[in-house]
Amino acid sequence: MSLALASPLADFAPSMGLMNSTILSPLVHFTPPVGFMNDPNGLVKVQDTYHLYYQHNPNGTVWGPPEWGHATSRDLIQWTDHGTAIARVSENEGVFSGCAVVDVNDTSKLFSGTKVPPEERIVAIFTSNWPDNQVQSIAYSLDGGNTFKRYAHNPVLDINSTQFRDPKVFYHEESGKWIMSVARTQKYEVAFYGSSNLIDWQELSTFSGGFTGYQYEMPDLVHVPVSGSNEKKWVLMLSINPGSPIGGSMVQYFIGDFDGKKFTPQDNFARIADTGKDWYASQTWSNTGDEVLCIAWGSNWQYTNQLPQGPWKSIMSLPRRLSLTKVPYNPEYQGYVLTQQPVDVSAYRRNKASGNITDSAAVELQRTSQNGIFEFTIDVANGTVPADSSLSIVGSSQQGHNITMGLLATDSGAHVYVDRTQNEFLYPLFTEKLSTFVPLNSAGHLKVHGIVDRGSVELYFNDGQEVFTNSYILPEGVSLSKLAISTKGYKAKATIYELVVKANDSGK
Amino acid sequence: MSLALASPLADFAPSMGLMNSTILSPLVHFTPPVGFMNDPNGLVKVQDTYHLYYQHNPNGTVWGPPEWGHATSRDLIQWTDHGTAIARVSENEGVFSGCAVVDVNDTSKLFSGTKVPPEERIVAIFTSNWPDNQVQSIAYSLDGGNTFKRYAHNPVLDINSTQFRDPKVFYHEESGKWIMSVARTQKYEVAFYGSSNLIDWQELSTFSGGFTGYQYEMPDLVHVPVSGSNEKKWVLMLSINPGSPIGGSMVQYFIGDFDGKKFTPQDNFARIADTGKDWYASQTWSNTGDEVLCIAWGSNWQYTNQLPQGPWKSIMSLPRRLSLTKVPYNPEYQGYVLTQQPVDVSAYRRNKASGNITDSAAVELQRTSQNGIFEFTIDVANGTVPADSSLSIVGSSQQGHNITMGLLATDSGAHVYVDRTQNEFLYPLFTEKLSTFVPLNSAGHLKVHGIVDRGSVELYFNDGQEVFTNSYILPEGVSLSKLAISTKGYKAKATIYELVVKANDSGK
Repeated sequence: MSLALASPLADFAPSMGLMNSTILSPLVHFTPPVGFMNDPNGLVKVQDTYHLYYQHNPNGTVWGPPEWGHATSRDLIQWTDHGTAIARVSENEGVFSGCAVVDVNDTSKLFSGTKVPPEERIVAIFTSNWPDNQVQSIAYSLDGGNTFKRYAHNPVLDINSTQFRDPKVFYHEESGKWIMSVARTQKYEVAFYGSSNLIDWQELSTFSGGFTGYQYEMPDLVHVPVSGSNEKKWVLMLSINPGSPIGGSMVQYFIGDFDGKKFTPQDNFARIADTGKDWYASQTWSNTGDEVLCIAWGSNWQYTNQLPQGPWKSIMSLPRRLSLTKVPYNPEYQGYVLTQQPVDVSAYRRNKASGNITDSAAVELQRTSQNGIFEFTIDVANGTVPADSSLSIVGSSQQGHNITMGLLATDSGAHVYVDRTQNEFLYPLFTEKLSTFVPLNSAGHLKVHGIVDRGSVELYFNDGQEVFTNSYILPEGVSLSKLAISTKGYKAKATIYELVVKANDSGK
Repeated sequence: MSLALASPLADFAPSMGLMNSTILSPLVHFTPPVGFMNDPNGLVKVQDTYHLYYQHNPNGTVWGPPEWGHATSRDLIQWTDHGTAIARVSENEGVFSGCAVVDVNDTSKLFSGTKVPPEERIVAIFTSNWPDNQVQSIAYSLDGGNTFKRYAHNPVLDINSTQFRDPKVFYHEESGKWIMSVARTQKYEVAFYGSSNLIDWQELSTFSGGFTGYQYEMPDLVHVPVSGSNEKKWVLMLSINPGSPIGGSMVQYFIGDFDGKKFTPQDNFARIADTGKDWYASQTWSNTGDEVLCIAWGSNWQYTNQLPQGPWKSIMSLPRRLSLTKVPYNPEYQGYVLTQQPVDVSAYRRNKASGNITDSAAVELQRTSQNGIFEFTIDVANGTVPADSSLSIVGSSQQGHNITMGLLATDSGAHVYVDRTQNEFLYPLFTEKLSTFVPLNSAGHLKVHGIVDRGSVELYFNDGQEVFTNSYILPEGVSLSKLAISTKGYKAKATIYELVVKANDSGK
């Protein structure tokens, strides 16, 4: 019998207010205390503190005219929320996405006459959305990032377009200029602008490429270290929504050169940053030196408004360290891939289970967790396994719910799947059986590093050469209490940890 | 409760022989009488007859060393199978994919001394697969395409590679040469070769671009008419598998110019020919004049071996007419899209139901069918509908199974979904809830043309500007007996036909 309902959509009209639910919030991923969150904004490191601003509708658990919320963390795992950082100036404005930089040398002169220490001169550059225009505006903080004062002569960039948004700015040493990437979303153009003072901007060039979907959003050009060398290459990350080939929202990226004016990709290939359905609108932190750290919104516009979360809605992904690695795409092609490693969660590991797993029916590795958070690593030598070898990772609740992940061997790698089927949320766009393909690494192995939080599964393959991030929904009050790894054909080395973060450590 | 099984994979090791099943075969789509079928091969029109050769393992319902099967049709809907056309020459050979052309002028001299009429001089160009090499070989038919004699001095192209396959050849009038596109699959190169006689080939150029996945397959360069003009543009169709962003297998395409030597794409965008999971390894017919017709394999390597079909396995898509149309990707960008219209099925229409549908709960349009085959068209004016408008198309069996399709309105188009959830086939890679996005057409409407056969749903949007092809599985002996269209918010004009093709008309 089919599970499809006779009127499958009747129950999915989202309500506009703050929905209440006791669906458990994640503990190693950031969520807002209340209201709807989408894109990460204004990511900037100031001394030892990571600032995370975010698109926030405090008045509902669906998207609504946003302001910037604000949270900070020292370890990128536990966050303290500080409430509104940039409020709307009128009912007609939306404080849309943007970035933040530290204007150490006060190139903007916004800090002249103030006592703000140079290393705390935070300037936010963001899109001010009006019913008939999207313009780029700036604001500066006199209190280390908690509140912002708008520049008196905004906007700083206005091309008379309703589809011009998501500025991301970095300082380009070689040309001695601030460089902004910003999307002319429905022209499929990433526009690059240059400025000496964050206020006066000149257009430098545009870039178009990759998969278009309906529109571009959230471009981010960043200089990324190449593993095992002193080299760096430029990576342009670019979100598209709706209409991604994964379904809904997706982040693609391009590898190439930037000469201070123009981004030139190294090839015409289209590459996807995360092949899961819940990783969108990624942004990198500014002011982190040679380290490149990013975070993304852990949901998808296809279904985020319908998800039965509340009074908070949406999570951020784990922050990730980015590098480029030259790897085999297959036995005949070596190329770079954007390599993503999650922030180190080792301080939260407890109760390790570790061992070798074979396909003896009696042998599996398992671990329980009180709070429903697990980390696991698996290393399988794929080379000589039988053709129908498989590995499954089943997270189960005491009430009998399963979230199932697994590998299905092929001669060149493995199909990877996540099955998040539950009766709790049957929305037609909430794809339940998700799958991707991972080729063998250069040693002929497949490695999996998984972090399972309440409502989120992030799977990192082959040291982060591919990532597959998907959300899941369990009923109110339910979390996964056990994680078990078993194999058929495969021989695997595996470790499972329970991650222990007290709920009130995160202020929840 | 979750549907996931404790040992979800135990039952999915495919058996190697011919599985028997009474799962109903499609009636307007081609299936082999017995055995496993994959890529379409050797598509050629000879006088009024369309030839369809196909990758065929007659000894099992999973992939096995293939030969070329053969079927013909006059109307591209009802096919007559003729058995083996090109057999393997040894147990170590596989007769892999390739094409066929009519060598009217006997440029190959293969027909000298024969009485084969010029218009029946069929030459097949295909990959001969050996354990340590893939080479391109040719064969010619002395009986109008039923059997082939191999050229005495094969191979005609050997670069000493195990990853060099899927030749597709056309005659390029301007340069007076045969042009072959062929995949160096794991180098992500489409290689173009030229020849005056189909025997001696010189390399001309290579092309790389788009999504890579694990490897390229089945390139096909074809000159496609631009709608509403006398112009044509070159389109390079290119399959990738595994590792497509859709999951598993997918066909992408590039639009550009071909000067007789080199293909130059018009832009760096990656485009997908069909956003469903079951449309792979497309090929166009040769010798069809100005008309461009293609067909594809209606399955996905992620799960085809596991599907519980037998003694036949896999279907072909409906043949489609290709053109290029300039359309709005969004309000600010106009560009070409590959436009696909299914072959005309009007001769099989019976029992029309037609009318306007509104969101009154009592009003829906429905039609029954004895054989489980439907065609429907829907036209909705999207512009002014409420934000949560939706439309659903539910195919249901007398036993209570549903295959549900639908539109969910957005302000710029609609999310489209197919829900093929059934308990019959719970393989983790068989994505049950499939979705894509369709923008409004230039008139602000959304148009849907659907053809539902037993085991297949092809949805054509906005006159074929986007296509979404997915298979489904019902239990043995079960077919859809009713199709019903209902709306919420949307106002739609709709028509449903029962398509009547007698089972034994197709020789089943």
